[in-house]
Amino acid sequence: MAYEFKAIRRVEFADTDTAGIMHFSNYFRFMETAEHGFFRSLGLSIFRDKAHPEVGWPRVHAECDYDAPVTFDDQVEIHLLVKAKKSKALSYVFNFRKLNADPPLQVARGALTVVCVMMKDGKMSACTIPGYIADKIQVAPADLLH
Amino acid sequence: MAYEFKAIRRVEFADTDTAGIMHFSNYFRFMETAEHGFFRSLGLSIFRDKAHPEVGWPRVHAECDYDAPVTFDDQVEIHLLVKAKKSKALSYVFNFRKLNADPPLQVARGALTVVCVMMKDGKMSACTIPGYIADKIQVAPADLLH
Amino acid sequence: MAYEFKAIRRVEFADTDTAGIMHFSNYFRFMETAEHGFFRSLGLSIFRDKAHPEVGWPRVHAECDYDAPVTFDDQVEIHLLVKAKKSKALSYVFNFRKLNADPPLQVARGALTVVCVMMKDGKMSACTIPGYIADKIQVAPADLLH
Amino acid sequence: MAYEFKAIRRVEFADTDTAGIMHFSNYFRFMETAEHGFFRSLGLSIFRDKAHPEVGWPRVHAECDYDAPVTFDDQVEIHLLVKAKKSKALSYVFNFRKLNADPPLQVARGALTVVCVMMKDGKMSACTIPGYIADKIQVAPADLLH
Repeated sequence: MAYEFKAIRRVEFADTDTAGIMHFSNYFRFMETAEHGFFRSLGLSIFRDKAHPEVGWPRVHAECDYDAPVTFDDQVEIHLLVKAKKSKALSYVFNFRKLNADPPLQVARGALTVVCVMMKDGKMSACTIPGYIADKIQVAPADLLH
Repeated sequence: MAYEFKAIRRVEFADTDTAGIMHFSNYFRFMETAEHGFFRSLGLSIFRDKAHPEVGWPRVHAECDYDAPVTFDDQVEIHLLVKAKKSKALSYVFNFRKLNADPPLQVARGALTVVCVMMKDGKMSACTIPGYIADKIQVAPADLLH
Repeated sequence: MAYEFKAIRRVEFADTDTAGIMHFSNYFRFMETAEHGFFRSLGLSIFRDKAHPEVGWPRVHAECDYDAPVTFDDQVEIHLLVKAKKSKALSYVFNFRKLNADPPLQVARGALTVVCVMMKDGKMSACTIPGYIADKIQVAPADLLH
Repeated sequence: MAYEFKAIRRVEFADTDTAGIMHFSNYFRFMETAEHGFFRSLGLSIFRDKAHPEVGWPRVHAECDYDAPVTFDDQVEIHLLVKAKKSKALSYVFNFRKLNADPPLQVARGALTVVCVMMKDGKMSACTIPGYIADKIQVAPADLLH
């Protein structure tokens, strides 16, 4: 059972904008990178798992609080923690740290709620998280959650 | 004094992902389109206003709730409403509607809080919203705010 | 029979980068906007046409020459011209003009070659362009092509 | 003196589109990742080198030939080779290989021509590549260039 994952992404030039900082929408892409890395670390895929191709994870809520900007070439650590695990949904929180600061600097905090869905005849409907997934995921200890 | 703006954007192919729907991060870009259109409608620019080149609007909070997916070629209306106006910050809410549905369908709701900053010697610090901007913006009537 | 289409896109903040100009990759997205608009103007869709859901148009070649930068809020006209029409492929050229210059300024020239494919059993293979599409498209007069 | 660099990027979900493959514009972002990695490997930065903050590298030409699609989660190697070195410009070619194929599969070939510019009073003009950069870069052997 796992409750966390750390991904690292470098801020690419195309991630930045005219203000000279990473565009605020790209933090959500970084969250997704950590989410997918979390699933991969469990031997799962967020999309089209071969054994269960019909399970998907659409987002129902996403948010981000921005503390300090990051710029081109910064190394950003995205620390995912499982905040809630319900029968049909998972909630994550994310801590963003700029690693090329001394000491590493918290630059943003994010959250994502995703729902497990099945595809049937081209339509998707919420479903109970399959056991082979749910059995591998647990909620993080309260003291780690902001 | 204005408190709302409606922008329309078509979902481009590059906005979608393998799930066949608009990627959740792109709703934040659509919010920004409405925010910039709002400022433009007031004769202002969100960035490098010629008369006041040093004023910027970094985001401190962004969020979105997703109600229904939108897909390639959908026409999306983004309805911005001013939710709060403080001395140094503005908060907006956004209603996303898919116009090519009959009747138009609410597909998402968003929110953005931005802070007014001045650039001095390469550093930015929060500042009071200049009068020539603040005088043009008011909070939307309560019954319009979700 | 049509051989051209003009689309207009405003440069969004998220389209720019730290250099203060539109990121060079986004010109290709602008080309695609014109290509899709061209098909739409013919009563067709580039993707999942209801009558012929299995036809797709993957790119085999894309290129762009950059003459002058465009920046946030610029209005860009993307002028598509059909350069070649083969049994299984179409080639387009694109002229980018910045409309908010006096006179309008050519800022880039692009090209795209796309191949018509059919999806069969999850695999795609090149196919002859269906008559209902081919009959609507012709090559632009030579003097218009750069 | 160096003439090549290899970068690896995983195809993120946001890099893909409704066709289930990486959007063709994103190959150009992958090229840039390799270009920046190349400079970094030489102890340089493509942007705002602290010692020479005024040097920039706008693109004048970019192109890509697509051989086979890549999809979500694919590991893509981008192999940069210096094709030409002129007094004011550099040309690169790129080979894209999908590493999670057996054997690794060539999926695309790209090219980029960039010009060295100086910023003076907010305007940029082409300039001779500074010696501290030019001295570190050489053209790749002819047999490696496609």
